[in-house]
Amino acid sequence: MKTTIFKGIIAYPITPFTKEEKVDLPLFKTLVERLVVHQANAIAPLGSTGVLPYLSDDEKEAVVKATIEQVNGRVPVLVGVSNLTTAKTVQHAQHAERLGAQAVMIIPMSYWKLTDDEIYEHYQTVANNISIPIMAYNNPATSGVDMSPQLLERLLTIPAVTMIKESTGDIQRMHYLKKVLGEKVDFFNGSNPLALGAFVAGATGWCTAAHNLIPQLNINLYQCIKNGKLEEAQRIFYQQVDLLKFIVEKGLPRSVQAGLELLGEKGGHLRSPLKPLSQKDKEQLKQLLFAAIS
Amino acid sequence: MKTTIFKGIIAYPITPFTKEEKVDLPLFKTLVERLVVHQANAIAPLGSTGVLPYLSDDEKEAVVKATIEQVNGRVPVLVGVSNLTTAKTVQHAQHAERLGAQAVMIIPMSYWKLTDDEIYEHYQTVANNISIPIMAYNNPATSGVDMSPQLLERLLTIPAVTMIKESTGDIQRMHYLKKVLGEKVDFFNGSNPLALGAFVAGATGWCTAAHNLIPQLNINLYQCIKNGKLEEAQRIFYQQVDLLKFIVEKGLPRSVQAGLELLGEKGGHLRSPLKPLSQKDKEQLKQLLFAAIS
Amino acid sequence: MKTTIFKGIIAYPITPFTKEEKVDLPLFKTLVERLVVHQANAIAPLGSTGVLPYLSDDEKEAVVKATIEQVNGRVPVLVGVSNLTTAKTVQHAQHAERLGAQAVMIIPMSYWKLTDDEIYEHYQTVANNISIPIMAYNNPATSGVDMSPQLLERLLTIPAVTMIKESTGDIQRMHYLKKVLGEKVDFFNGSNPLALGAFVAGATGWCTAAHNLIPQLNINLYQCIKNGKLEEAQRIFYQQVDLLKFIVEKGLPRSVQAGLELLGEKGGHLRSPLKPLSQKDKEQLKQLLFAAIS
Amino acid sequence: MKTTIFKGIIAYPITPFTKEEKVDLPLFKTLVERLVVHQANAIAPLGSTGVLPYLSDDEKEAVVKATIEQVNGRVPVLVGVSNLTTAKTVQHAQHAERLGAQAVMIIPMSYWKLTDDEIYEHYQTVANNISIPIMAYNNPATSGVDMSPQLLERLLTIPAVTMIKESTGDIQRMHYLKKVLGEKVDFFNGSNPLALGAFVAGATGWCTAAHNLIPQLNINLYQCIKNGKLEEAQRIFYQQVDLLKFIVEKGLPRSVQAGLELLGEKGGHLRSPLKPLSQKDKEQLKQLLFAAIS
Repeated sequence: MKTTIFKGIIAYPITPFTKEEKVDLPLFKTLVERLVVHQANAIAPLGSTGVLPYLSDDEKEAVVKATIEQVNGRVPVLVGVSNLTTAKTVQHAQHAERLGAQAVMIIPMSYWKLTDDEIYEHYQTVANNISIPIMAYNNPATSGVDMSPQLLERLLTIPAVTMIKESTGDIQRMHYLKKVLGEKVDFFNGSNPLALGAFVAGATGWCTAAHNLIPQLNINLYQCIKNGKLEEAQRIFYQQVDLLKFIVEKGLPRSVQAGLELLGEKGGHLRSPLKPLSQKDKEQLKQLLFAAIS
Repeated sequence: MKTTIFKGIIAYPITPFTKEEKVDLPLFKTLVERLVVHQANAIAPLGSTGVLPYLSDDEKEAVVKATIEQVNGRVPVLVGVSNLTTAKTVQHAQHAERLGAQAVMIIPMSYWKLTDDEIYEHYQTVANNISIPIMAYNNPATSGVDMSPQLLERLLTIPAVTMIKESTGDIQRMHYLKKVLGEKVDFFNGSNPLALGAFVAGATGWCTAAHNLIPQLNINLYQCIKNGKLEEAQRIFYQQVDLLKFIVEKGLPRSVQAGLELLGEKGGHLRSPLKPLSQKDKEQLKQLLFAAIS
Repeated sequence: MKTTIFKGIIAYPITPFTKEEKVDLPLFKTLVERLVVHQANAIAPLGSTGVLPYLSDDEKEAVVKATIEQVNGRVPVLVGVSNLTTAKTVQHAQHAERLGAQAVMIIPMSYWKLTDDEIYEHYQTVANNISIPIMAYNNPATSGVDMSPQLLERLLTIPAVTMIKESTGDIQRMHYLKKVLGEKVDFFNGSNPLALGAFVAGATGWCTAAHNLIPQLNINLYQCIKNGKLEEAQRIFYQQVDLLKFIVEKGLPRSVQAGLELLGEKGGHLRSPLKPLSQKDKEQLKQLLFAAIS
Repeated sequence: MKTTIFKGIIAYPITPFTKEEKVDLPLFKTLVERLVVHQANAIAPLGSTGVLPYLSDDEKEAVVKATIEQVNGRVPVLVGVSNLTTAKTVQHAQHAERLGAQAVMIIPMSYWKLTDDEIYEHYQTVANNISIPIMAYNNPATSGVDMSPQLLERLLTIPAVTMIKESTGDIQRMHYLKKVLGEKVDFFNGSNPLALGAFVAGATGWCTAAHNLIPQLNINLYQCIKNGKLEEAQRIFYQQVDLLKFIVEKGLPRSVQAGLELLGEKGGHLRSPLKPLSQKDKEQLKQLLFAAIS
């Protein structure tokens, strides 16, 4: 089996902006520090939560640099480097490696639905140009393409592909991955509302933006599963599930930004066309957030 | 909270036919006996597995009578009495009660998609005409209507509705039911491939035809969950999950009939238009079945 | 190419009930007479509109008898004989033929999703036992099974299957049927809101319950298409499209019953669990109906 | 009603690349010239067909410049300027206007599903910064967001939004637009296989990449509809429908590139991860293409 240093709670920071919609690097560093201090097992900048596709090349590189500096080796760093073109994906993956990231995460973004062969070549080309591991990420809701278990199995023949992140939100897909690929690879859950089911199904880690808001609940869930405390895991899961559903439904960048403010932290601004949660949504978030952590 | 005597593995017998496509009552009794001997916690004739909608009124009544006689009080009996019309549903529910069934199961069959009000009145009319509990059963794949959690909550205001069976196959629906209705009612999982996730989410029981083929694996899964043995539950679940998926995908009556023959038992015939599994499917079933129980 | 006597507007009567929920045969005959007088090109009792699956065997036979008597040879009669079991389908098809129906319509009802082989054998068994033509009817929304164009093509190898009715509501399916099967068979549109597109795509007829309410608009649309008056067809279609969508969305039996009352006709009662349109829906229907025919 | 100079066949050129995956501007100009010579009623660079999202800012600007120069006022030019961020959308729209485009087309690209308010503000911000008309483009398959008819109606309150392009592939959506918005705005069909149905439903134009391969068939269809020749329109549509479905299913850039080569023209290369059609697909395309134009 391929081994990986990633496990547990992999925390996704948002990318905060200034009022003028420039990336706010000082605030970003503060938010990364919070995640590390709150015991995240790894930090993953430039995910969907970090609004990767809304950033310029220079901005992406600055965010990676800020993350590596701030984390400073305390936990591993997993950098999102997905891009529509293969050339740009290679470029960003090489940059992440050069700066010291432990691994890169790649979702096969597609405007034109890619064929399995195109996706395979895309990953292989990146793998040929870097020497750190790749987490292959399946999330049809944002990428527009659903990688079949068969395709994921094929991607695993590329030595650099050592991790799979699944976000279809289908627990049976998790079962399949664990059953068929479980001896070959670690898989990670990217669907927040499936956190309990995915851990029970054997996921190695949980990729989540929720750690920005409810770090203790996330970590406790993981610990209970690891220690076989099923009943407590169930209780802790039900304590946070409504919040998990809310932040997914309303959008992670909007929800985390609003949630940070509710917690008395700075959350910065969003980049247009993304706008803050409506007042009504903020009130619902407030209720859910304080119900979860009380 | 409403209480119920049902829990654990609720086993669904098939309704076997003779070569001339008449109901084979002697064989049916043999199959029911097997389920009881194999430690099912309850017996549920005339479910989807029992091809309820393919039977005449007289045949349905004979099957209920045969079940009650054979079970003879050793475990509770839950009779499927679903029908397109309200009048027939009442008639069959009354008959089941008269013969001694402990409860009836009702899915809101619909050729014309029913409104929430129509469904509510349907259940209420039945409830007004019997004095045993009702399990409200949601399975859009066969009934053509997906009862929302809100509608299920409304059905629970009818005192006789004391149990909910969920078969959408969506683990998040389970979470919702447990979270919102969990203090009011027991819920039962009817989606075989979700067996592990549903128990972990708090299901009281698992309604399954798999008990005809792999009773020990079904019961062990339930026991492990009850005793908090998460890792063993996971192992036992993965041992049976491929078989569970197969029998759902290929149709429970066809799969159970073929599986019984593979186990050296009589499975009887099917009623047209249902036909036996193809030779190729039988071979796959053989592989999965013996892999599971070996 | 197989030929058929059916074309144009094939009108579907509802099956009205008395207050006590018995079939109201005298009113049924009145409603059939209206359809004939309003120039329907054929009459089709016991369709979905006629709540076929909610009737007993005796009731079905009485409805067929009443239709044949009332129509009395003025236009062809197409009888719905669909049933979950093959045996019952044969029985009802034979009865329809014996009483003088010109053809039968069969949808592969399925509680358990049927395989292609099972569906083929189902049709073949019926064909072997009657000598009038069969309209194969595809409507996944009510039958639970979507017959692929390939399966439809296979059904056409049965000599008695001379007509196809398509109700998926997908205009591209119409295109496919016309393109691939168009030389072999007449196809009929069963999706009311697609009436214009289906005729333009080459449909031979339109199977509709709307003829109970807006016969002139239905017939005019057909005539305009036949006479190549595209612009007028478009105008007439847009005059009725909102009503067509409403009656489909709210259910044809409920909508036709309410619409008849709005027109000053008797519509009878529905059989439980089906209930009349809500007051709000009736008001919307009133608006749409009078906007269409004004 | 808002008026527009666009109507008929709006032709979408591909953006061809050199072997080294650089934009091949000389070949692009040749392909644009073909479209104009083949009587396209307008030219629309940087659509999905033109792989807009795979190009850098500089490349986009060069493509617009090349189009305007080559078309040289012979027909109107409609430039795709869609971008994930509002700022970039404004920047590209201003550039297109500066260079002389007659209108811009904007699809609300979304990685994070946008709210209706976000989409409205996105369009309004662009409208406030340019003085040429905007075609609002709905295509959930590529943008990830389905703009409801209600939202489209709201967008029409922005004076600059004078055209709607619909690509959901749902003929009933077309009906709705025509019925509800038809007096306010021209709508254009972007779903190739719906070409006949959309024109019959009242579409003002057809946005298509097919004009690169079968210009005469596209134009003839439009002419037949305009002249009320329904039967001939039907015949011409069925002549091309299989090809239209193929190019959509296999991806427009891949299909047009391969089709051009089959016609003896240069099609250039694609940019990775997009790869040429497989040999098998090319052979099918060859069959369909020559069947259509023979």
